[in-house]
Amino acid sequence: MKQYVFGVDVGGTTVKMGFFDVKGNLLEKWEIPTRTEDKGSHILPDVGESILKKMKEKQITKEEVAGVGLGAPGPIDSEGVVHRAVNLGWDTFSIKNTLADILHMPVMAGNDANVAALGEMWKGSGQGSNDLIMVTLGTGIGGGIISGGRVLTGAGGAGGEIGHIHVDDTETESCGCGNKGCLEQYSSATGIARLAKSRLAKSDKESVLRHGPVSAKSVFDAVKQKDALAIEVAEEFGRYLGDGLAVIAGVINPDTIVIGGGVSKAGEILIDYIKPYYEKNVFHGSKDVKFVLATLGNDAGIYGAARLVLDGGANKAD
Amino acid sequence: MKQYVFGVDVGGTTVKMGFFDVKGNLLEKWEIPTRTEDKGSHILPDVGESILKKMKEKQITKEEVAGVGLGAPGPIDSEGVVHRAVNLGWDTFSIKNTLADILHMPVMAGNDANVAALGEMWKGSGQGSNDLIMVTLGTGIGGGIISGGRVLTGAGGAGGEIGHIHVDDTETESCGCGNKGCLEQYSSATGIARLAKSRLAKSDKESVLRHGPVSAKSVFDAVKQKDALAIEVAEEFGRYLGDGLAVIAGVINPDTIVIGGGVSKAGEILIDYIKPYYEKNVFHGSKDVKFVLATLGNDAGIYGAARLVLDGGANKAD
Repeated sequence: MKQYVFGVDVGGTTVKMGFFDVKGNLLEKWEIPTRTEDKGSHILPDVGESILKKMKEKQITKEEVAGVGLGAPGPIDSEGVVHRAVNLGWDTFSIKNTLADILHMPVMAGNDANVAALGEMWKGSGQGSNDLIMVTLGTGIGGGIISGGRVLTGAGGAGGEIGHIHVDDTETESCGCGNKGCLEQYSSATGIARLAKSRLAKSDKESVLRHGPVSAKSVFDAVKQKDALAIEVAEEFGRYLGDGLAVIAGVINPDTIVIGGGVSKAGEILIDYIKPYYEKNVFHGSKDVKFVLATLGNDAGIYGAARLVLDGGANKAD
Repeated sequence: MKQYVFGVDVGGTTVKMGFFDVKGNLLEKWEIPTRTEDKGSHILPDVGESILKKMKEKQITKEEVAGVGLGAPGPIDSEGVVHRAVNLGWDTFSIKNTLADILHMPVMAGNDANVAALGEMWKGSGQGSNDLIMVTLGTGIGGGIISGGRVLTGAGGAGGEIGHIHVDDTETESCGCGNKGCLEQYSSATGIARLAKSRLAKSDKESVLRHGPVSAKSVFDAVKQKDALAIEVAEEFGRYLGDGLAVIAGVINPDTIVIGGGVSKAGEILIDYIKPYYEKNVFHGSKDVKFVLATLGNDAGIYGAARLVLDGGANKAD
């Protein structure tokens, strides 16, 4: 009788681990460091060891565990094969097989942003939806798409890469991905700060942003104080993101768009700047979408990873 | 023992019908007129009658038939409910239940462009792919997305609506959908003719297009004759479509993009104008996509509709 499931979210510095019952109640969570040395070859053995230790501590057997789900930052295809994850030092190999060989339990793996979207659908602000887009506004922009209740993985595991859609032909600076004019260059935390700095440099307009460090947080704090220059930045942020989401949602036809990541701590005001641009350009069949803020925070990944296992192949082409 | 399946493609003037074996061999095809009068209320009874007649003629029983799949122009959700199909006079109702009540056999229904994409995946130029985008360049632009082997239906059946993604902020003319700057306004047959007429009016450049009717066909015929103005139009067409597909494919991560519809009769030269723009802007994870021309022509819809039944709920959220 399968009663438990593990959800693992591998980040660049720490691995988050969650121990759940199969109904999705988080019974315990903990972290271990991510050892990226030696091409990241210690990461999966460390995860395996930590899970086995937890099972011993809880006195549960493999027969009671449905499996282990894992999300990681990189393209991971429907077979659980990662195709290079630069931040972890990983080249191309099967996460699924490697971890299953260590644990002798079923393993499922997916891209971290896709898996987080699944987590929000299951236990976060996307509950009740089968078709949602999650956009994670952090240092970069992560994206995850759930279509018909399933993670949209794509042919090579690069499905849901919302941060790198091309949104501006006039851009002269390069994005981290090598292209120019990616959404991430405008609407991530880094992008918002960049837009603000550019506006501050180009005008003499007085702004509270001139008197402290410029960040996505300081911009939206200033917006709440009705700072005119900050509001211009927020409009620009919203136009890029609203226009971009209008194109994506026009073809995905979700009922819910979840906004997460550090920038989303600014609150509902964020949606006020995105939604008008979204509604202006989106195909009418996708206009009535619900915009919500993510509620699981950093736990979305472990929830989604656990769910991946319970879906028993939800990220597999079948 | 299920040996046969029917595929039905409802168009504005005719209904195409296909009688297949379950391996996907088209045994016979025929057409009946689409009677759009009386709010299209005769269409499904006509389809039902025609199928029963064919079964009688072939002396096959309901026990031998896996079911009937149907594609129609309009948003059709995962439950087989159409949400208004203006061209047919249809309001909102369950196609699946209505036709099943007539036939007493399993029925599946989907949007015609989505279903055509499934057809090309099964028996056309998308064979071997599980993740593809099909774009149909006709009077308008239709789109269909297959992700993980399944039709991307969307929450309200508007999934895959590629023709109405917003691609130009400067457009002053309205699209049929009510928005301005939709892809369809530039890269459909109508859009290509519009781009050509606009260029002819704005310049004095000599062109073979000045000496005959201007259409998508005449433009690409002129391109093949190295007509300079026609080549400018082809570049503009390719930039809009290549840029648009780069955004969509960036999040869908397909391995194949199928170009179909009347415009695709221009041949491989079409791809030469789309691909460079696509490759310039797309996220690197989706760069190595295969561009192919559709091969099933007007039969893609009946093939895909038949496949919908054999997948037994491939367009259902489950």
